[in-house]
Amino acid sequence: MIGLDDIRAARWRIQPHIRKTPILPYGQLSSREDFGGTVTLKLELLQAAGSFKARGAMNRLLTLSAEELARGVVTASGGNHGLAIARSAHVLGVKAKIFLPSNVVADKVAKLKRWGAEVEIVGAVWDDANAAALAYAEKTGATYAHPFSDPVVVAGQGTLGLDILDELPDVDVILVAIGGGGLITGLSTAVKALRPETRIIGIEPYGSPTLHACLEAGKLVTLDKLETRVATMSCRRTDQAIYEAVAKHVDEIVLVSDAEMEQAAQSLWFEFGIAADLSGAAAVAALQAKRFVPAPGSRVCALVCGAGTDGTGA
Amino acid sequence: MIGLDDIRAARWRIQPHIRKTPILPYGQLSSREDFGGTVTLKLELLQAAGSFKARGAMNRLLTLSAEELARGVVTASGGNHGLAIARSAHVLGVKAKIFLPSNVVADKVAKLKRWGAEVEIVGAVWDDANAAALAYAEKTGATYAHPFSDPVVVAGQGTLGLDILDELPDVDVILVAIGGGGLITGLSTAVKALRPETRIIGIEPYGSPTLHACLEAGKLVTLDKLETRVATMSCRRTDQAIYEAVAKHVDEIVLVSDAEMEQAAQSLWFEFGIAADLSGAAAVAALQAKRFVPAPGSRVCALVCGAGTDGTGA
Repeated sequence: MIGLDDIRAARWRIQPHIRKTPILPYGQLSSREDFGGTVTLKLELLQAAGSFKARGAMNRLLTLSAEELARGVVTASGGNHGLAIARSAHVLGVKAKIFLPSNVVADKVAKLKRWGAEVEIVGAVWDDANAAALAYAEKTGATYAHPFSDPVVVAGQGTLGLDILDELPDVDVILVAIGGGGLITGLSTAVKALRPETRIIGIEPYGSPTLHACLEAGKLVTLDKLETRVATMSCRRTDQAIYEAVAKHVDEIVLVSDAEMEQAAQSLWFEFGIAADLSGAAAVAALQAKRFVPAPGSRVCALVCGAGTDGTGA
Repeated sequence: MIGLDDIRAARWRIQPHIRKTPILPYGQLSSREDFGGTVTLKLELLQAAGSFKARGAMNRLLTLSAEELARGVVTASGGNHGLAIARSAHVLGVKAKIFLPSNVVADKVAKLKRWGAEVEIVGAVWDDANAAALAYAEKTGATYAHPFSDPVVVAGQGTLGLDILDELPDVDVILVAIGGGGLITGLSTAVKALRPETRIIGIEPYGSPTLHACLEAGKLVTLDKLETRVATMSCRRTDQAIYEAVAKHVDEIVLVSDAEMEQAAQSLWFEFGIAADLSGAAAVAALQAKRFVPAPGSRVCALVCGAGTDGTGA
């Protein structure tokens, strides 16, 4: 789908517009949690607009022509990609229109408006909102920005892999939440190119095992139903290129329950004052619930990929 | 009151029990904020138990005898010092009793209980709760841990100054919120010993100008009244040693309003997903409200010293 050069080019392009987010050792807790390895949190929820999506969105907009930008951008997003597109459009001074499913968190709608975007809520799940966004693009000529299957967006998300390797050059395992698969595709492409021995572990909700189901079936499949309340991790079907990249680069996908993500979000809040959303807490949930058990002594990076609205994971 | 050697000894002592908290460039915002200098946020709100107070509290407990520890510890605190004592006692396996004034945030009471402390609410302001804590210590033999005027606690807080200089060796200005004055005393003692040209700016609420009033009067004074809703920055009177250290090491104290701190807390929340309490937002408030204007091109560290309960600064 993309290669290391695309990701390096994206990094050069977006660097003036994104933050170098900090890392924090996972330790000094109220109770002893022994994960087997040494865990570090990559606090990508402190990224501009609250998540890693700022990377892909900015790379998308910075590769549009002036004429395409002038027509405005449109997308559909459970929240974080929409925020990132709205923020990138704000930075570049162009219009953004964001379609959202009705399960979006209210606070994210308010944030979208603060970034100057026009917001419209359509349908119950992301696929409905996305259909509306595509129709809007066709009708008005606005430029559509897909949240995860656009190679330019994926290359932008991949820059997070380069940043992690800069900060943790000997990382053995990276735990990454999966929504549509764009982040893990970009990140794993970067990491496997530079340090193939680093294991990439994907995390999906039991109620939306988008890529887990593909890997089990050995082909791209569509989920019959979604049964998670985590909008940012709800996706019935990814696309062929994402599936192929994940099959190639991702070592394992583990599933966590909504309750495990809620507990992890509460724990991040109590122990660190970190207000992650549920997808942001998914990597920590996988460790706490022993869905993934690192090898003893291994160096583990749990990616906290998105901000919430409070300590409950909302 | 204390010297650099005390702070270095404290650092050696507490290091296994505290976090190295990250720093984050202040930038990539929704609107252009030009402060004159380049601002970096020191995210000490990500410290164990939610604030810098973990440093002083741990140094206090680690310098008690086994016999003193066995009698349990008691303190009075608007929240963060209490949390830090409770957490330090938890780490060392001893009992903690925390007295609080009634203006404490409810969430902090819940957190204290999660760290295993016994909690009692007495009086309207910190001084009332402190009197109760002292009476309790006398009656039961528990070891009293003062939140700010104890040299051992001050030396612990001073380790934050060493950490900032490690990470930002050429910092020109450090902005520090003041409650009772323990943090700024320790921090400024460390920084002035190692880099005297770094300016230390204290921040107090208009409604509790504890040390600002002392510097104006040229002596230790007691405030007639407290008119701020920020419990962690409410203090009618500090002590002589703190006053003298601040007069010697602190370059300037600026005042901010509760509303300015609220706005800064909301801005930290919207722009970064950082849930600071109002004292944690005070340094940013001083910059945003132009209560302190850095020299053009200067390197400024705004200390975000404590975590809140949500994005409103509570």
